[in-house]
Amino acid sequence: LTSRLPNVGTTIFTVMSALAAEHKAVNLGQGFPDFACDSKLVDAVTSAMQAGHNQYPPMTGVPALRQAVSAKIAGLHTKTYQPDSEITITAGATQAIITAILAIVHPGDEVIVLEPCYDSYVPNIELAGGVVVRVPLTPGTFRPDFVKISAAITSKTRAILINTPHNPSATVWSRSEMLALQDLLAPTNILLISDEVYEHMVFDGQPHESASRFSGLAARAFVVSSFGKTFHVTGWKVGTVAAPAALTAEFRKVHQFNVFTVNTPVQHALAAYLGDPAPYVNLPAFYSAKRDLFRAGLASTRFKLLPSQGSYFQCVDISEVSDLNEADFCQWLTREVGVAAIPLSAFYGNGFDQRVVRFCFAKKDETLELALERLKKL
Amino acid sequence: LTSRLPNVGTTIFTVMSALAAEHKAVNLGQGFPDFACDSKLVDAVTSAMQAGHNQYPPMTGVPALRQAVSAKIAGLHTKTYQPDSEITITAGATQAIITAILAIVHPGDEVIVLEPCYDSYVPNIELAGGVVVRVPLTPGTFRPDFVKISAAITSKTRAILINTPHNPSATVWSRSEMLALQDLLAPTNILLISDEVYEHMVFDGQPHESASRFSGLAARAFVVSSFGKTFHVTGWKVGTVAAPAALTAEFRKVHQFNVFTVNTPVQHALAAYLGDPAPYVNLPAFYSAKRDLFRAGLASTRFKLLPSQGSYFQCVDISEVSDLNEADFCQWLTREVGVAAIPLSAFYGNGFDQRVVRFCFAKKDETLELALERLKKL
Ligand SMILES: CSCCC(=O)C(=O)O
Ligand SMILES: CSCCC(=O)C(=O)O
Repeated sequence: LTSRLPNVGTTIFTVMSALAAEHKAVNLGQGFPDFACDSKLVDAVTSAMQAGHNQYPPMTGVPALRQAVSAKIAGLHTKTYQPDSEITITAGATQAIITAILAIVHPGDEVIVLEPCYDSYVPNIELAGGVVVRVPLTPGTFRPDFVKISAAITSKTRAILINTPHNPSATVWSRSEMLALQDLLAPTNILLISDEVYEHMVFDGQPHESASRFSGLAARAFVVSSFGKTFHVTGWKVGTVAAPAALTAEFRKVHQFNVFTVNTPVQHALAAYLGDPAPYVNLPAFYSAKRDLFRAGLASTRFKLLPSQGSYFQCVDISEVSDLNEADFCQWLTREVGVAAIPLSAFYGNGFDQRVVRFCFAKKDETLELALERLKKL
Repeated sequence: LTSRLPNVGTTIFTVMSALAAEHKAVNLGQGFPDFACDSKLVDAVTSAMQAGHNQYPPMTGVPALRQAVSAKIAGLHTKTYQPDSEITITAGATQAIITAILAIVHPGDEVIVLEPCYDSYVPNIELAGGVVVRVPLTPGTFRPDFVKISAAITSKTRAILINTPHNPSATVWSRSEMLALQDLLAPTNILLISDEVYEHMVFDGQPHESASRFSGLAARAFVVSSFGKTFHVTGWKVGTVAAPAALTAEFRKVHQFNVFTVNTPVQHALAAYLGDPAPYVNLPAFYSAKRDLFRAGLASTRFKLLPSQGSYFQCVDISEVSDLNEADFCQWLTREVGVAAIPLSAFYGNGFDQRVVRFCFAKKDETLELALERLKKL
């Protein structure tokens, strides 16, 4: 059996979570909260099941949820997507991204990814028969380098993937960066996949500059988000894609033959829950407090703190702490110190090692305190 | 934008369900129950959510569920799959099938499908860059024709897809047919994808001859099933794949980058619920009673009943009822008579019309009675 993905092993998140469990380490590796979601959301799922919402929903998603998502985007970004033809509910953001890629990438098409990038993007493009074109984000700052991106564009470029707030670097694209991307793409037919799963975790009073805010981007974009991240239910596996009707039509052709539909009771529950904006409006304050707690704890250590403008994540430079490479450091930290982290090298095709690791602070304060206690001993 | 799936429209199931809703027709088209699932199962999901099982489960599935699935298969088919390396939990059977195809089909590989076949198979193969080789089931009886299958095999054949109990024809492969397939594949490296989502709906005291029962098939097979079908929760979207470790390893490489994981609370609920075999052991009696009720009702009509050995479905020949082709007949029946059905032509690449349509009898007895009342007027 010849592998379709010969260079792929088990995703780093699974590997590090298993190692953390084995060594009873505090798991600041894989990005997921260790605290409870709103009990109202649990009750809403129960109500939906009891009301009999247990059979196939419409292939595109429960209408009330698509309407609620459309209203939410309109409220936040003054862009109106038609619920029937421009919004699709997916089994999480990862499934949304592979579906978009399978829908638009023809064999031989080039797709630009900005490294470091989430580890599903490259295999997704490879499975579609596409050619991966890797453009580095600026070393050190992780900002997009439009000279490099521009130089990577050819007549075969079908799409570019961006991610803001960015996993793993915790940078958030600014308005001027989004405008620069818009200008760069304006004379082209290049499509955009904008992974915005951390859209509600943008800190320090900054706005989330969604691709849907920029008409020149929105017209060519699949804007992907995730309820799991927003509502602390990463295991429920429901996401969304907003895209112009022509793109959505192609997306749905593939979607219907990938997962076909998405968990019905959860969709009904989310539709009801989205009526109240407070849960997501309050997220920046909620998560930046955790970020600040974690940063304050590390301030006295030899970890060098990188900026964290958004997302679940805090990256640190380990040069002053250890001579190990990132991957070995994360293994060692998990086994010997009892704290799991993710090496940034896992987000690069060539395993580029810049001595930076990622911690997830989407954890109870007690969990962060315990991790800090251990990290301070270094 | 050039479509990746230029010949694909919206799946027939979605089209007919929408038409049925529009015309308030009794929906015997798309296959899903209109009755409630066991309330114990709903309670189990609620308990799992309340116990905090709301974050990412292991990528391969919740261990207790993989163990329960392994024990169930061992009990039914005396074949032991290792829960850790040979069982994977998927977001339904459709997602399992596309994932298996993406994992094993290289561009240019040939994949044999037996027509009529479920409408996701062909686009799945096309998305993987594979070449679809269509072999007809025997016209009239829908039995596999091993002479034709044998003739379709070439050095490029990577895999064959089978489906038993069969959607749409409601045939169930016999032991001798499975053995014939095993003999045919024995000298080859051809892989098997065995879609067995209706495994617990086999009637008249016949066994379900799973591919997992035949060592020569099991060694090359992805055996796919669905909890949605078995437990009357098609909207929960959880399925399974059992396959030898080497195949499972390739499957999981793709799975982790497609949906990554599957709804956590539902997995915990199913793990607990599988402890009691009664719900699936009783299914043949439960569904064959519905089949018999529906057949008895049609006996006095000019619909010619085809055999229904298993699945949710009853096919009928419409030659004596109408001159319309199958597709037009189903549209007419939905609009004018108030009963939705699915034309078998939707399961053929060339739209082959043999004057047969499919009814789904996975409905409350009242629903079937109402449909029969309308159909008897023809
Ligand atoms: C889907 S893997 C876990 C969450 C995540 O996105 C991450 O840790 O980067
Ligand atoms: C996934 S579509 C609906 C169910 C089904 O399998 C069918 O009707 O054939």
